[in-house]
Amino acid sequence: MTDTMSESKTAEFVPSYVSGAWWTPAAGVNATPIRDTSTGEQLALVSSEGLNIAEVVDYARATGRKGLGELTIHKRALKLKELALYLNDRKDVLYELSMANGATKGDCFFDVDGGIGVLFTMSSKGRRELPNTNVIVDGAVEPMSKDGSFIGEHIYSRIPGITVEINAFNFPVWGMLEKFAPAFVAGVPTIVKPATPTSNITAALVQLIVESGILPEGSLQFIAGSARDLIDHLDYRDMVTFTGSKATADRLRQHPNVQQGGVRFTAEADSLNAAILGTDVTTDSPEFPAFIRAVVNEMQVKAGQKCTAIRRVIVPHALVEPVVDALAARLDEKVTVGDPRVEGNTMGALASFDQLRDVRAAVDSLVDAGGSIAYGSNDWDDDQQGAFLSPVVLKWDDNRAEALHATEAFGPVSSVLGYETTAEAIELAALGDGSLVATVCTYDMEQAGELARGIAGYHGRIHMLNRDNARTSTGHGSPLPTLVHGGPGRAGGGEELGGVRGIKHYMQRTAVQGTPDLLTAVTGEWHRGAAQERVGDPEYGGVPEGENGAVHPFRKSLETLKIGDAFVSGLRQATEQEITDFANSTGDVFYAHTDPAAAEANPFFPGIVAHGYLLVSWAAGLFVAPGRSAVYANYGMENLRFLTPVGIDDSIRVELTAKRITPRETEDYGEVVWDALLLNQNDEIVATYDVMTLVAKREEQALGGN
Amino acid sequence: MTDTMSESKTAEFVPSYVSGAWWTPAAGVNATPIRDTSTGEQLALVSSEGLNIAEVVDYARATGRKGLGELTIHKRALKLKELALYLNDRKDVLYELSMANGATKGDCFFDVDGGIGVLFTMSSKGRRELPNTNVIVDGAVEPMSKDGSFIGEHIYSRIPGITVEINAFNFPVWGMLEKFAPAFVAGVPTIVKPATPTSNITAALVQLIVESGILPEGSLQFIAGSARDLIDHLDYRDMVTFTGSKATADRLRQHPNVQQGGVRFTAEADSLNAAILGTDVTTDSPEFPAFIRAVVNEMQVKAGQKCTAIRRVIVPHALVEPVVDALAARLDEKVTVGDPRVEGNTMGALASFDQLRDVRAAVDSLVDAGGSIAYGSNDWDDDQQGAFLSPVVLKWDDNRAEALHATEAFGPVSSVLGYETTAEAIELAALGDGSLVATVCTYDMEQAGELARGIAGYHGRIHMLNRDNARTSTGHGSPLPTLVHGGPGRAGGGEELGGVRGIKHYMQRTAVQGTPDLLTAVTGEWHRGAAQERVGDPEYGGVPEGENGAVHPFRKSLETLKIGDAFVSGLRQATEQEITDFANSTGDVFYAHTDPAAAEANPFFPGIVAHGYLLVSWAAGLFVAPGRSAVYANYGMENLRFLTPVGIDDSIRVELTAKRITPRETEDYGEVVWDALLLNQNDEIVATYDVMTLVAKREEQALGGN
Repeated sequence: MTDTMSESKTAEFVPSYVSGAWWTPAAGVNATPIRDTSTGEQLALVSSEGLNIAEVVDYARATGRKGLGELTIHKRALKLKELALYLNDRKDVLYELSMANGATKGDCFFDVDGGIGVLFTMSSKGRRELPNTNVIVDGAVEPMSKDGSFIGEHIYSRIPGITVEINAFNFPVWGMLEKFAPAFVAGVPTIVKPATPTSNITAALVQLIVESGILPEGSLQFIAGSARDLIDHLDYRDMVTFTGSKATADRLRQHPNVQQGGVRFTAEADSLNAAILGTDVTTDSPEFPAFIRAVVNEMQVKAGQKCTAIRRVIVPHALVEPVVDALAARLDEKVTVGDPRVEGNTMGALASFDQLRDVRAAVDSLVDAGGSIAYGSNDWDDDQQGAFLSPVVLKWDDNRAEALHATEAFGPVSSVLGYETTAEAIELAALGDGSLVATVCTYDMEQAGELARGIAGYHGRIHMLNRDNARTSTGHGSPLPTLVHGGPGRAGGGEELGGVRGIKHYMQRTAVQGTPDLLTAVTGEWHRGAAQERVGDPEYGGVPEGENGAVHPFRKSLETLKIGDAFVSGLRQATEQEITDFANSTGDVFYAHTDPAAAEANPFFPGIVAHGYLLVSWAAGLFVAPGRSAVYANYGMENLRFLTPVGIDDSIRVELTAKRITPRETEDYGEVVWDALLLNQNDEIVATYDVMTLVAKREEQALGGN
Repeated sequence: MTDTMSESKTAEFVPSYVSGAWWTPAAGVNATPIRDTSTGEQLALVSSEGLNIAEVVDYARATGRKGLGELTIHKRALKLKELALYLNDRKDVLYELSMANGATKGDCFFDVDGGIGVLFTMSSKGRRELPNTNVIVDGAVEPMSKDGSFIGEHIYSRIPGITVEINAFNFPVWGMLEKFAPAFVAGVPTIVKPATPTSNITAALVQLIVESGILPEGSLQFIAGSARDLIDHLDYRDMVTFTGSKATADRLRQHPNVQQGGVRFTAEADSLNAAILGTDVTTDSPEFPAFIRAVVNEMQVKAGQKCTAIRRVIVPHALVEPVVDALAARLDEKVTVGDPRVEGNTMGALASFDQLRDVRAAVDSLVDAGGSIAYGSNDWDDDQQGAFLSPVVLKWDDNRAEALHATEAFGPVSSVLGYETTAEAIELAALGDGSLVATVCTYDMEQAGELARGIAGYHGRIHMLNRDNARTSTGHGSPLPTLVHGGPGRAGGGEELGGVRGIKHYMQRTAVQGTPDLLTAVTGEWHRGAAQERVGDPEYGGVPEGENGAVHPFRKSLETLKIGDAFVSGLRQATEQEITDFANSTGDVFYAHTDPAAAEANPFFPGIVAHGYLLVSWAAGLFVAPGRSAVYANYGMENLRFLTPVGIDDSIRVELTAKRITPRETEDYGEVVWDALLLNQNDEIVATYDVMTLVAKREEQALGGN
């Protein structure tokens, strides 16, 4: 425990942070001790006895939801970045506590820096890929009536409740932050209940967060010790995200509030993850040592206490012995078990003495089921001071033994088994009944595709390894904030992270139907057909610039620009000469623009047609405001579709409407997406697209003109 | 029963279709009768006693998955269209049977034509929005190493099992097809188990489908009567989609194979859907009659036996009486209850006599809880021949009475309640504890936005109604295949349909990490950095056209074009004169292209820069093949981003690579998406985008040149 923490806690209890204050139980309650897993020394006591859980839930519902709801997605995401920077400067305390739990420096990096990394990524993804509002539009508008007066689309808005994290002991920092970050960006308050053996580390993290003062009140609460009757207070508005053993997941899932009450429940349970070595690999291939390194790394990091660790090493029969030998050699070379605070030790203790007992029992039962220990030993040492276990590699004669695919030793333990054909490798991987991740290691691209597609349905993630990425891969066992984490079946059936997918997990998807004006009102994004302020050619409903104070929308900064602000141009005719000139000047001499006979033979064109690129260039010429402009730049285009060809002497005009305005929190400009509609002289739609621009926040930033 | 049906069934049992054959139980088993609900006449018997369910599941797993797996997404989608056309010509038998179940012609249209409509929509969406393969890429590539050798992305592939539909009695045709269609496109075999009272109608539908011979063997099986031990044979690979009462959903969810076995379970249960009338509406507003029509329609269609029907009519206090009066007047005018086969009757019987008893009991309990009957009556008539019930409108003094928001009378029954403020209306709607759909009726856009955003988290769909779409709206109660159907809490917590979202519900999302070559091998889509066949400028690794048989990829039809086929150009320099000429010829005189001082003041530009549209036009000039070409047309562009500005005397070159090839099943061309990469003279990325083209299937379709 650090000095700053002891200021706010009583005696040696790990404090809870609830309803805006620190709480510790009364002296004398039943409590669970936390020990230094290298020395056995008692570090703290944990108990939530006497804590009023109903109040904690109410506080999240009222204060937590209110504070978060007052911010937009970008504002919340930005707070995560602030928090990440704050924690980055103060992570030593987390390292220190983690090392007393058997974590090496490398393990700490994985947990602590990995957790802070999730904050950075969710912050950046949230601000780059989501709107700066509280309603996210999902997918395209669906037309539902011929006249356009009835349309539909989908929106995401935050779930109407709170979220409860119930976490595993192995990653007390990352485990909390990987769920907290997306929930926070979504606007949903979190109650965290970590596993008791490492709850002191999560408490220290929460202490730092509270001290930072960055988060809105009630957005994060923390319970050390038992969650008690927490789920009794939840309902269909809420979400429980569980990480831990399948047995606990099954028990929680049986709670009536989950069963009948509609509590959203998602689980991420450890699974018997596989690593498959391709049939093309020999001991001389560059893939062979890369594969061995990957397996040893998964045994060593966190002493194999990772739900993503490799439990089943599936290799061609002929390579079973060479793989076992190579694993043994590398384990000998790389792994020294002992107190991670002592120089030279490269693998620490398990996270608790209970854990040590469980893993040893699991190894025994694997041996009973037919596994033979090819490296390490599982001999009990009753006098052992720390919760240390040497790495264990098992070999199997029967590659379908049930225990091999079902019994997990949650420590530095892996089994090696042989296979014959690619189809058998897929079958063996699937015998895990659903896993978080599998590694596929081959340099044969066809085999890689076959293996990956064959096992994809059984996995949440597939990590493919060969000589070309052996050095750059982030590894089999590392869930990344940009990729989904979770898996079917034994892995819990849940899904977390995955960039903004992870944020949407805390949101409800709702279909919305109505007029373009109604959908504009709901989403804050302009929909084609909704009301516009039309500036431009009076022939097409525009007020000429200057008349009645009409201003071209490109001259408006974000201070004055509104969605629905539009510019409508007059017609411009396409002449044969211009098409020819464009072909010659650009070099785009495609026959449809230059060869009348071939153009006419083309099933889509009436004859010579204008280049699509010429049309969008002309459209820009029609909609761009000459002179002074608040638009800084056109940075891109989306969804361009050419719908009606423009032949010689046809004309086009453009309607450009401000569709989505996204002020950037940290810049003096924002993104404005414009709906562009190109029409011909018969009002047929020639093309539609979105023009993406950067626009100054303030009027005086405009440039150009006089 | 029709003649065609009686050929293949024994006696009056409704037959099951399993393991490729029709099956009926032995004479004398316990069976449930199906009756004509207008006349009480017995029509058929239903029983699955003696059916070997394990064999049915095995047949789906083996034969069903094999047949579906041999087809691509587009091929399966096309079969749905064939099937829809086939059924459309033979739907009379379904109408006839449905009318014996109390359905009016309009109800039949809703169920039968609505169901066939789902087939058409899923077919078209699947072919237009998904690739013609079996792996769907989800979202963008995530970079994971600086050198590009390690990247990640997400794919969808079909779940590794089967799906079981357990359906409600009210929509025997639509209810089956709305789930079958997306599962079929995904490639997952279906076992359908409809509710017994209308299983004869679903049997007739399956009979037509089997006779059509369109579907691969084992992709659809059908069980009439009890599902018996069906869920005992399912595991984490499989999915159960349930539609029906919350009580049954809760019971099924408790099956150990769902609880611990990981069976994917999704429920769609009827809910107490609300319709909210805005505070801006008076009896003179056009919204008033539109609202009344919507409520009466939901009472009348299918005699109110729709999980989406309006149960709670939430209106400003002052409008409670006018709304009740107007409902009464319109019900009097529009609704005549009786045998739907008799001319003049506009509302039929309930779907069973059990159902009639249940609804009457529910109305009684609503009255006991404080509701008063303002229209209709709930008087029991023990001599009643058909399962008829007149519409019932209830009024409530206490707008928060628990039963009002929790007790559902699944028939032509609605309650009217008053509210004060928008916030209260939101609160009342939320008291339904999660609903499938709500209608919001207002012409006040601000209020519309506030109401919709306020209730969105509690709803799967929001239907917004006002004068502008009163005529074009598809209605409150109609789930549409393009929009998601389902809702949180009481509505079951599931999600169905929603265009291709519905197909993805039957697929597993998996993160895939590897080199660009590996991801290309898995997905069949070329990834930037993967191997290419480079034709073009030798300076940039291209083989000049003609050398060693090198062919410009634009000249290749789908017979010879492969992903990775690329054209690399040489450099083209941007001169000030060309930029000026382009500004003048297009009219795009934005200051960054024309005013050196203003351009330099712009925070993103070094000075005068070339137009983005000029760059993409030049790029086309650089990559287009002069002369003969198998490319028919450029129909669009996606994901264009300008990354590095191009100033005077900078140069650009282009690399264009075939990225995704999608042959169209029904046309003699396909879609080819090309990855376009614009680089400058320093190999910095100037712009990236996808160019979308239509390309001929066969070499001899090429046009242009000699």
